[in-house]
Amino acid sequence: MKKIAILGFGVVGSGVAEVLTQNKSIIEKKLAESIEIKYILDLRDFPDSPFADKVIHDFNIILDDPEISIVAEMMGGSHPAYDFSKACLLAGKNVVTSNKEVVSKFGTELLEIAKQNNVRYLFEASVGGGIPIIRPINNDLTANKITSIDGILNGTTNYILTQMNEHGTSFAEALKDAQSKGYAEADPTADIEGIDAARKICILSALSFGKCLCADAISRQGITQITADDFAIAKSLGYTIKLIGHSEIIKSKIYADVAPRFVPLSNPLAHISDVYNGILVGANMLDNVLFYGKGAGKLPTASAVTADIIDIAEKMGTAACPTISWSNAEGDDISSEEEYKTQRCIILCGRVEGAKYIGELNKSVIITDKISIKDCISLASEYNTEYTVYSIL
Amino acid sequence: MKKIAILGFGVVGSGVAEVLTQNKSIIEKKLAESIEIKYILDLRDFPDSPFADKVIHDFNIILDDPEISIVAEMMGGSHPAYDFSKACLLAGKNVVTSNKEVVSKFGTELLEIAKQNNVRYLFEASVGGGIPIIRPINNDLTANKITSIDGILNGTTNYILTQMNEHGTSFAEALKDAQSKGYAEADPTADIEGIDAARKICILSALSFGKCLCADAISRQGITQITADDFAIAKSLGYTIKLIGHSEIIKSKIYADVAPRFVPLSNPLAHISDVYNGILVGANMLDNVLFYGKGAGKLPTASAVTADIIDIAEKMGTAACPTISWSNAEGDDISSEEEYKTQRCIILCGRVEGAKYIGELNKSVIITDKISIKDCISLASEYNTEYTVYSIL
Repeated sequence: MKKIAILGFGVVGSGVAEVLTQNKSIIEKKLAESIEIKYILDLRDFPDSPFADKVIHDFNIILDDPEISIVAEMMGGSHPAYDFSKACLLAGKNVVTSNKEVVSKFGTELLEIAKQNNVRYLFEASVGGGIPIIRPINNDLTANKITSIDGILNGTTNYILTQMNEHGTSFAEALKDAQSKGYAEADPTADIEGIDAARKICILSALSFGKCLCADAISRQGITQITADDFAIAKSLGYTIKLIGHSEIIKSKIYADVAPRFVPLSNPLAHISDVYNGILVGANMLDNVLFYGKGAGKLPTASAVTADIIDIAEKMGTAACPTISWSNAEGDDISSEEEYKTQRCIILCGRVEGAKYIGELNKSVIITDKISIKDCISLASEYNTEYTVYSIL
Repeated sequence: MKKIAILGFGVVGSGVAEVLTQNKSIIEKKLAESIEIKYILDLRDFPDSPFADKVIHDFNIILDDPEISIVAEMMGGSHPAYDFSKACLLAGKNVVTSNKEVVSKFGTELLEIAKQNNVRYLFEASVGGGIPIIRPINNDLTANKITSIDGILNGTTNYILTQMNEHGTSFAEALKDAQSKGYAEADPTADIEGIDAARKICILSALSFGKCLCADAISRQGITQITADDFAIAKSLGYTIKLIGHSEIIKSKIYADVAPRFVPLSNPLAHISDVYNGILVGANMLDNVLFYGKGAGKLPTASAVTADIIDIAEKMGTAACPTISWSNAEGDDISSEEEYKTQRCIILCGRVEGAKYIGELNKSVIITDKISIKDCISLASEYNTEYTVYSIL
């Protein structure tokens, strides 16, 4: 029997307890042993929960208990989640997490500490909720050189964009709708400004390319400026608009950004709607492979956390503990926005010579070759009118 | 260094040699050791190949060489592929394969022999070509109870159906086109009659539910009867038609079939076009998760084979050799077609009272509740006219 502790009994933490309970027999069959929750750390009490007797308030009880070999950190935020995770790893305990903030900010250090202490730090649930993506990149695409990643990584923004696309609603209306349905938080900044997606693309990029970019430093654009007109134009040209986290290697350097992009309808990402996520991985032998599913939600995310717990329990005490490691990207590892060339769509106000005119909107459109954003802006500026630029996937 | 043998130097076999050569440095970095091809078994010689000096014609050289710890069976067909695989496993050699015929027919026995001999029998490439699906079901969905599988498992038929859907071509024309492009073989029976898809759904079903159905015994319908009218009707109702391998648990019994189905456009499988494959797995915590990519082709398939080789090399000699095992499904394990209830679409000739009339085709359509095929046929028969029935996904 493996005894575990859950740090944080919120949505995902209580989901993990539920998955372990509800699928107990399947898990025991797989592992040939059971997993028991010994402690749940939270500031609150949960007198009505079936797990009420497991709830404690002192982290040191967990840290000092040699019976606890796996700790599931489901607290969210950087602190004390990072500090507790670090302490557990240093104490020789395995840690699993769904915390993309901690993984993207402190993953390099925590993975190194795990390695030194012969334990594992796993984070399948930090990207794509329940969708298997971290382990497939690590275990299944091993015979491939990964060349690019494009992901719809945030369910809230994808729901908003789906509403705008399907019903022609404005961003403000769609956001309000998402909030009323519980898909967007009262303060939606981290979602709609692409902060959440930036953390996730940095994790996937680190895993694929071995160097972790700082999520705060990559080029990042949210969805707040997208208009119903932009959607109408995209549609008339055979595209839709999706918030895409993108990363690729440009001349041995890593490039990553988050931005709304025109996605052609022939691309499977164009058909990923509502709160679903999808991650398209480009690989040199495999071409493209897509992973799709629920990118958030209590039980999907908790099932990914639980898969990590099972993985650790299964391999514990054997020599086969595949370790993940990456280093922090530094100056020379990082490709600038200027070096990134892609096809772009320039939307111009009014009728413009040499551009496709969309009469009912009184706008003109130019689809460029692969060019840098600087060249694109310089091209757009020549027309002396207002313009918007979208990268094309 | 691990030394391997490749059995069969056809498309996939030569692809494995190419992947191991071209991505040598990535693979060595992952494994901290190299993988060397020592033998290639084939009836032919390949004097112009860079691997010409590895080619041998006597299987016993491989069997008797203690240096060979991994054998990649890429021969296709049942014999001698099965016999050679069995001999290798009995001799304590690990075997990887892309051979769905052998896995679906003899997987139960070969997995048991592998277990008894403390080696592994892996077959990631047998379903979905390069798409990771076997290992994700085994390693990533472990915290879930899998409830259903729906897959577009055959690229040839998906290409034909895409042509029929997009260009209104007949089946015969689309098949001819697929043959001219090299997507369909001169004898396309195994593809168009759903035999290939049946093998693959039986493998996925065995993996998910622990019991292997006989691919020859499940209900199987090919795509040869689908008409342009059927596609027009599907489209007018918001569906497309896809050849789907389906499996689910009905009252603790396993049901599986292969048939063309009406797939609603809101289902991600509806947008999987051309030679691509997609597998939608339903799981009790995760809801639905989709794996999508190139379901065939030299390098994608070879990269999946190579991922299995790397997996074996990585864990060899450790206690962590996760074994797959299933048993053959017997009478009580198997749900009959009669017990399977699903929504169905009945297409009737002419104008029929109470049904939706599609004037330009002079046909009528009834969408049923979830009913058995027997009840559906009895319902359709009441109208005293010709009819076609499609299950709805």
